[in-house]
Amino acid sequence: MTASAPAQADVTTLPSYIADRWITPDPSAPGARVTPVTDASTGATTAQAVADGSVDIAAAVDHARTVGQRHLGELTTHERALILKNLALHLNDRRDSLYRLSFATGTTSRDNLIDIDGGIGTLFAFSSKGRRELPNTNVIPDGPVEVLSRDGSFVARHIHTAIPGVAAQVNAFNFPVWGMLEKFAPAFVAGVPSIVKPATQTAPVAVECVRLMTESGLLPDGSLQLITGGGRDLVDHLDERDHLAFTGSADTARLLRGSEAVQSQGLRFSAEADSLNAAILAPDATPGTPEFDAYIRILFTEMTAKAGQKCTAVRRAVVPSALVDDVVDALAAKLDEKVVLGDPRDDATTMGPLVSTDQQADVAGAVRSLVDAGATVRYGGGVPEGTRGGAFFSPTILSVDDPRTPAVHDTEAFGPVVTVLGYDDKGTGDVTEAVELTNLGRGSLVASLVTDDMDTAATVSRGIAALHGRLHLVNRQDAKSSTGHGSPLPVLVHGGPGRAGGGEELGGVRGITHFMQRTAVQGSPDHLTAVTGEWVRGAATNTVTRQDIDAGTGVHPFRKSLTELRIGDQLVSEPRTVTLDDIRYFADTTGDTFYAHTDEAAATANPFFPRRVAHGYLLVSWAAGLFVEPAPGPVLANYGLENLRFITPVSYDDTIRVTLTAKRITPRVTDDYGEVCWDALITNQDGETVATYDVLTLVEKEDTTYATWGQ
Amino acid sequence: MTASAPAQADVTTLPSYIADRWITPDPSAPGARVTPVTDASTGATTAQAVADGSVDIAAAVDHARTVGQRHLGELTTHERALILKNLALHLNDRRDSLYRLSFATGTTSRDNLIDIDGGIGTLFAFSSKGRRELPNTNVIPDGPVEVLSRDGSFVARHIHTAIPGVAAQVNAFNFPVWGMLEKFAPAFVAGVPSIVKPATQTAPVAVECVRLMTESGLLPDGSLQLITGGGRDLVDHLDERDHLAFTGSADTARLLRGSEAVQSQGLRFSAEADSLNAAILAPDATPGTPEFDAYIRILFTEMTAKAGQKCTAVRRAVVPSALVDDVVDALAAKLDEKVVLGDPRDDATTMGPLVSTDQQADVAGAVRSLVDAGATVRYGGGVPEGTRGGAFFSPTILSVDDPRTPAVHDTEAFGPVVTVLGYDDKGTGDVTEAVELTNLGRGSLVASLVTDDMDTAATVSRGIAALHGRLHLVNRQDAKSSTGHGSPLPVLVHGGPGRAGGGEELGGVRGITHFMQRTAVQGSPDHLTAVTGEWVRGAATNTVTRQDIDAGTGVHPFRKSLTELRIGDQLVSEPRTVTLDDIRYFADTTGDTFYAHTDEAAATANPFFPRRVAHGYLLVSWAAGLFVEPAPGPVLANYGLENLRFITPVSYDDTIRVTLTAKRITPRVTDDYGEVCWDALITNQDGETVATYDVLTLVEKEDTTYATWGQ
Repeated sequence: MTASAPAQADVTTLPSYIADRWITPDPSAPGARVTPVTDASTGATTAQAVADGSVDIAAAVDHARTVGQRHLGELTTHERALILKNLALHLNDRRDSLYRLSFATGTTSRDNLIDIDGGIGTLFAFSSKGRRELPNTNVIPDGPVEVLSRDGSFVARHIHTAIPGVAAQVNAFNFPVWGMLEKFAPAFVAGVPSIVKPATQTAPVAVECVRLMTESGLLPDGSLQLITGGGRDLVDHLDERDHLAFTGSADTARLLRGSEAVQSQGLRFSAEADSLNAAILAPDATPGTPEFDAYIRILFTEMTAKAGQKCTAVRRAVVPSALVDDVVDALAAKLDEKVVLGDPRDDATTMGPLVSTDQQADVAGAVRSLVDAGATVRYGGGVPEGTRGGAFFSPTILSVDDPRTPAVHDTEAFGPVVTVLGYDDKGTGDVTEAVELTNLGRGSLVASLVTDDMDTAATVSRGIAALHGRLHLVNRQDAKSSTGHGSPLPVLVHGGPGRAGGGEELGGVRGITHFMQRTAVQGSPDHLTAVTGEWVRGAATNTVTRQDIDAGTGVHPFRKSLTELRIGDQLVSEPRTVTLDDIRYFADTTGDTFYAHTDEAAATANPFFPRRVAHGYLLVSWAAGLFVEPAPGPVLANYGLENLRFITPVSYDDTIRVTLTAKRITPRVTDDYGEVCWDALITNQDGETVATYDVLTLVEKEDTTYATWGQ
Repeated sequence: MTASAPAQADVTTLPSYIADRWITPDPSAPGARVTPVTDASTGATTAQAVADGSVDIAAAVDHARTVGQRHLGELTTHERALILKNLALHLNDRRDSLYRLSFATGTTSRDNLIDIDGGIGTLFAFSSKGRRELPNTNVIPDGPVEVLSRDGSFVARHIHTAIPGVAAQVNAFNFPVWGMLEKFAPAFVAGVPSIVKPATQTAPVAVECVRLMTESGLLPDGSLQLITGGGRDLVDHLDERDHLAFTGSADTARLLRGSEAVQSQGLRFSAEADSLNAAILAPDATPGTPEFDAYIRILFTEMTAKAGQKCTAVRRAVVPSALVDDVVDALAAKLDEKVVLGDPRDDATTMGPLVSTDQQADVAGAVRSLVDAGATVRYGGGVPEGTRGGAFFSPTILSVDDPRTPAVHDTEAFGPVVTVLGYDDKGTGDVTEAVELTNLGRGSLVASLVTDDMDTAATVSRGIAALHGRLHLVNRQDAKSSTGHGSPLPVLVHGGPGRAGGGEELGGVRGITHFMQRTAVQGSPDHLTAVTGEWVRGAATNTVTRQDIDAGTGVHPFRKSLTELRIGDQLVSEPRTVTLDDIRYFADTTGDTFYAHTDEAAATANPFFPRRVAHGYLLVSWAAGLFVEPAPGPVLANYGLENLRFITPVSYDDTIRVTLTAKRITPRVTDDYGEVCWDALITNQDGETVATYDVLTLVEKEDTTYATWGQ
């Protein structure tokens, strides 16, 4: 049942949230299109989506590009990431209203954990990743500085900056909360406002989630808008400034990809489409092994969770030919034992209905196609008796004689249906055909491989990786701790090539950069420092020496709090000469008596050393001695070191000096201190580079704080 | 003049290189389509491209996917990268034949440096980047290991693996060598075979380049194929296994993007299209400054190099309104002084013709459109007199009263044409309108900004970055050392959003991964170790202790050459206890007397330390003492250290121990040694992690080598 059903006065009309206010359309307006939302278990109408023309899409897009961009742009990555955490806490306390509405969509409590708790968890994850892994600015450097001219006066670096438009989402029905938040969260950290168009079947849940988010008062103006009812023409309003993320069927992905906006207007488009995901049972994972049991559990979970309505669910079980019947039997036994199909509001229910009778008809049709193509129903196979009105479908196992039957690799039954197909392992554990069959899916979101044989793990993975967005490897070691075949994680990319849509989402900070443009910036060191906010070698400095400090004409950078410190603040140390005794003594006390430090003849014979040389660790230890300020001050600790390279060896009688420059300053939004990364450069008496590295320190925002720590 | 001209017996028929052999079509075959190639300066026919049906595109694609993939896959990244270097050396010695053919396409000697030497330089660059920055395997890890379960038994990492198909190229006429090699090189390092379809106007140069490459004997079978004449249906043969890279007009990009293969078959598609690139003169760069002179040089170079036939050339000069006339006059004077338009084979010539009379007509038409839209011709403006037969076009400066005239931001004259437009800086150096005008280009490959004001550099860059693939910032510091507005570099990304095609090429190893699929791999530590070839914490080890070594029952990993060493080889050191005297002594000898090591009360007050603690540098120095093997052996040097983090402080009376595990082994293809990265883990007496880091060493392939080094 789709558009233009008669309006029902007694059911909720779904509102939209546009330009920071809620709009409820009028179902009785002339020409209004009404789409009923039904209870998955009973078929009763629970709400209606109405398109009455009251939502001005162009205005919504403009609001995002102007008001939304401005308000988000006034915050830094860390500030936005912190808002996500607070939003997550707000939602976490109010999950019950989401659970309640979700039951009507056919989901069980376990399913709700995936969608609702999973969605909230994604907010937490992006909040944490954003603050731990990104600089606290709106220009995200990508990769190292590239020196383009011999004299260092022309350098380059890549940066990511937020796209100047809107992150539009067209979401699937199966995850109204997670599916929205997994796109919203990275776009929000990037600084890009979202416009969400949820699938109507489960829109009441998405509306409630947005309602909770807006009532929190945490959302900057224009950062989130929601369109229910209308909005089919959303894509027509987008262009090179924007991003459109779609989750759903391959057919709709094709439609959107073919739009004028994507084809000719430069709209960025990312699709995450259903795919024919495989789970491969390796030859070593025979019945009786922990791996075989783990395999059956994977198939069981992927059939029953969300009643199989997951883009990532297993559609093809690829098993050694000899084990087809064992797998079918073990899976059937598990289904017999565990599945109680019913209304999720009944406590006994372990698997709910499909989302709608439309979906039920689709799945039944797909099963029929598979049977017509040669598959055999081994379990279930259709609509269970006595479930009139509800969208129930029995868990269904198919098997097929010819594993290369095209329909098996192309026809997706988006429900609790799996097809078991056998590969010939030639009695030798050969996995060539398993790889071939898996790749007949022509690009999938995920494949599981169950094996405790590491050669098999390597061979199969390398054979299928390029046609998959994610691989999930299971053996006795991780069978219990695995988060499962079907669960995308915020820190891992989600999406896949080919049939799976060719898109990429999530993946930690990668997911944030999907809403940003990567740009190569070439210029002088001063230019790069100005643009990236990170000091680049060769750029202007504010330099002090020990003499300046002793004379009171300069302040040691370690004496500056975060609010006083500026990138480019620099200390040039005194020189210090290394003696042979120093090297000997360091060797004796540390125990590092490597011949290069202790044996003149052997050291000289080594191709990299002139004669006995100082330990690299001696050099960095001395460098710390040369740049340190002993007394308590704003620098609290040196918590690490990066990118250390020893360039020119230092022998006895050489003299070293260290230059330390404030390179990157990252105040924390949740603490009274932050990180400062210092560029350290050790040179010798001839000005040659001895070593370069980054020193990582924690520095107080205000120098006064320290005095209170001990109290 | 396009297809189906009469065949000419006396001109060269361009061959194709398919399935490792040359095929010359028959121009007199029934139904053969013949396209003449003309000399740009004289109009004489120099060659002909013929489509007679003799090239079997499907077979070529199949050859690449099977033979090409197999032969490339038998090599590692470093081996393939080394072949690129040798190919570059081979071409470098034979540039003259390429130069000779190029002159006929209208290019000057200076232009040839860009195309031919630039193309060869790209091979060198990818050879070097590939070997320095990638592991020497065919699985390229991306980012760190993510620990997904509390007990560490379920972990994940992203990998890149080569796509399983072909890298198809449809190239533009303007860079027959560079345009081909900049796509071929990264695909080749990735392990993906190329099929090249050059533009017919300059195909003789591309054919000669491929001929030189094939005659070198360096190309693995199937790794490079070339289609001249036919091949319009190449895209129809591609699918989710493949990659199609296009360079050329926005219209053709649209056509290819709309193809069934891209729309429905999952073909990866990257377009790099002409764009209306801007060069911005900042308010501070007034006449008389070195910046103003640099700006005029940029405009001059971008108009005259390749006669302006570069996707990256400046089309829009965005200057303060008050300086429009100064810029026009200075540029006109420079053109008067420097431009000698003529046949590139004349020594006096400084600027050649356009590639063809078709192109000449296009440019003339674009200039007419701009004038019709309100632009004024300030210099040049059309075909110079007395150049009948050749495709000459005068350098042309336009200006426009209304800088927002749409045609100026949309009509590309792909020749020596620039339009000067003024922005209102409000007399205050305001650059708001400069940003707005630049962004009216709706996505460009590159923009230059000339300024010595760093606030302006930051403001403009952040305002335009998201609509540009590259920014080029110039001031007095880098004006001389800059590689220029119009030159993409192998280490920097090339391509841009929106109108520029939305693609990305090059960018160092980023460019290599464009021909690979990123996949998240989840599994046990053993799984990840097997798949990535890099040891992951928690995976199986081959562990020895000092006791084992002393007892002769185990070999210290440092005693193993590269050929003997395996990832997972591990040493667990003896324990060592830190005393207060050790800390004091280390402070005294290194000079690092930071209070956390020397002042009990102050250390205790610091929030991160329990009381006086050992220096981090003491810990890593001692760790080296605990794991080192003093006598000469295969380990030649410790050249650096990565990812050092101090986790748990070590106070006096604590005892530390270090566990060192071979994590990544990278034999060099050009040396008798390679890199070994060791996972170092320092723990305390309670088993807590004190510090983690990677130790970088150089290790000989064979332990025998060392003995000969000193001789």
